[in-house]
Amino acid sequence: MKIRIDQKNLSKHINMAQKGISSRTTLQILDGILLETVNGRLKLTGTDLEISIETYVDCEIIEEGSIVVNSRIFGDIIKKLPESTINIDVKNNNINITCENSEFNILGNSPTEYPDLPAIIDQKSFTMPKDLFKGAIRQTVFATTQDETRPILTGVLLELVDKKISFVALDGYRLALRRIPIDSSLDIKIVIPGRALNELNKIIEDSEEDITITAAPGHVIFNIGDTLVYSRLLEGQFLNYRDIIRKDHKTNIIVNKKLFQNSLERASLLAKEEKANLVKLNLLDGQVIIKSNSEIGNVNEKIIANQNGENINIAFNSRYILEGTKVIEAEEIELSFMGSLNPCIIKPVGDENYTYLVLPVRLAQDDY
Amino acid sequence: MKIRIDQKNLSKHINMAQKGISSRTTLQILDGILLETVNGRLKLTGTDLEISIETYVDCEIIEEGSIVVNSRIFGDIIKKLPESTINIDVKNNNINITCENSEFNILGNSPTEYPDLPAIIDQKSFTMPKDLFKGAIRQTVFATTQDETRPILTGVLLELVDKKISFVALDGYRLALRRIPIDSSLDIKIVIPGRALNELNKIIEDSEEDITITAAPGHVIFNIGDTLVYSRLLEGQFLNYRDIIRKDHKTNIIVNKKLFQNSLERASLLAKEEKANLVKLNLLDGQVIIKSNSEIGNVNEKIIANQNGENINIAFNSRYILEGTKVIEAEEIELSFMGSLNPCIIKPVGDENYTYLVLPVRLAQDDY
Repeated sequence: MKIRIDQKNLSKHINMAQKGISSRTTLQILDGILLETVNGRLKLTGTDLEISIETYVDCEIIEEGSIVVNSRIFGDIIKKLPESTINIDVKNNNINITCENSEFNILGNSPTEYPDLPAIIDQKSFTMPKDLFKGAIRQTVFATTQDETRPILTGVLLELVDKKISFVALDGYRLALRRIPIDSSLDIKIVIPGRALNELNKIIEDSEEDITITAAPGHVIFNIGDTLVYSRLLEGQFLNYRDIIRKDHKTNIIVNKKLFQNSLERASLLAKEEKANLVKLNLLDGQVIIKSNSEIGNVNEKIIANQNGENINIAFNSRYILEGTKVIEAEEIELSFMGSLNPCIIKPVGDENYTYLVLPVRLAQDDY
Repeated sequence: MKIRIDQKNLSKHINMAQKGISSRTTLQILDGILLETVNGRLKLTGTDLEISIETYVDCEIIEEGSIVVNSRIFGDIIKKLPESTINIDVKNNNINITCENSEFNILGNSPTEYPDLPAIIDQKSFTMPKDLFKGAIRQTVFATTQDETRPILTGVLLELVDKKISFVALDGYRLALRRIPIDSSLDIKIVIPGRALNELNKIIEDSEEDITITAAPGHVIFNIGDTLVYSRLLEGQFLNYRDIIRKDHKTNIIVNKKLFQNSLERASLLAKEEKANLVKLNLLDGQVIIKSNSEIGNVNEKIIANQNGENINIAFNSRYILEGTKVIEAEEIELSFMGSLNPCIIKPVGDENYTYLVLPVRLAQDDY
């Protein structure tokens, strides 16, 4: 293999391919990036066998070929070279890299040892704007569980039905649901690992261009221009989230999102000093009083609410209610309650397409 | 104690006082910030008994008093409160903090338990511009040792003599010396712990205002406007650094600082893969060839040099030569050599007041 390639461009794409590589891999070949000349471009591949990333860079090909190179060393070298044209010349397993007055020789591995990516058959594709996709990930993936004993809940359900995509994540304590209307009549129901979505969000640039999502048995592929991200799907039955979200409520309040979030954050300062991480909300005649106490002290926050329905005292794990509030961008949010023992539902005012549901913590009546 | 104080201003000064507090303290009272009303202002003190920081904030005093409050909790609360006026009301050991619709009650400690700062007697003071002082710390403190078995070398020597201040740090492998002419006829020779200087550098804002430095037996005090930083001095005899810096050289080269640094950084990528961290320099007829090799490969860098004197092959620990090069701001640097076994001296061209000296690594002749 012998190519000439732009330093900045190559460095950017190495960065992307590295997102597929796990620092904890025990297989030495998986520390590597596979470089291949394909259709007049250089293709870079990084994988940990769960996630695979393929990305293409323009270059001048003098001689076709391929090699596997240690991703960290290769990335560091290319990043530190001058902003100029780099020559890469591979003979046997030696990689010769020259750029202006710098010359590196590093040892690569044979591409025959590199694992094959899954062959994709029986596929269904649809497209959506990148920024909507990024937003949907951001508003749901945090609610997946980290608990590996419930593997299906470490992923986000992506369900396309009736020309609507739903992104759903839940962990037994809260549920986040983002709906996006879409121009596709396909039926798709897959569960994508949270880690794949997090890595994907680092790669996708905010823009109004489209991302193409292709679902196939066992795999999903995200196509974002020059880059393809493959992820294995999670197997198993996702909870029927529709049954969890009730429609009937005894109390509704509308509050300013920023004020509510700030008050929760302050109350959390003391809550997080205790194991239970508890904040208490008293809805009282158009006011929300947020309280928390720990060994070192107590806090009392008041904010004005537009209240419909009866007063209520309820308690939450402060992290769960705060995380759901933070990802909402609306100026005002609506909170709906059905007593102290039933979930609270939080929605942005003026946007029916996001729902966050959080379970309360049950306290003795005197403790609210 | 009862005061009214501006949120932003208080938060900024808590941040400063926190720099004196060690996260590893075992004495609970030292986790605290001492708050005191003093001469119409609020004084905040943080200390780990090695470094003490006192800082003053304007406030409205309704009732004089003092209290010790956990620095992390207090800092977090004040930071999260709205940009508005904060009321702090201390009764016994309860601290009541209110701001707009927020109210906190936290438990403080009695100020009688808080350690007294050292009484300063027999002192000598001089002033210098803040930015020169910051620069001098940045150019020397990195060359102190981390090796606690040679405590005196964990500090920077500050020597004022003949209207010149010298800042000197050395660790047995390299030496950094910064000289600054100054308008003071005092004689001062003290060794200041590196950690105190690092914390100080975080507090000092870049400006042309003056810092006042006061040396007293066992202590030094830095006065930067509203804030005083006390540090214990290191005891013992500092090496006579003047004897180490030779004046006679067989080879001098002048190179572009940025090109030399970039080449060293690239060579270091492979050098740091090996324990010896070795880079080799061949000075050959007006060229510097920088080489390094490790199990995974080799690198060869060339830069043009303005050479005076004989050719030479020499090797260094790449970290030591790189760190000294990095802190120099000049466009060109001069490197002076006296054979492969003697120290190399690096100076900015056009500035006689900075000297960096680094010991070579001795190699067998065939290995250069």
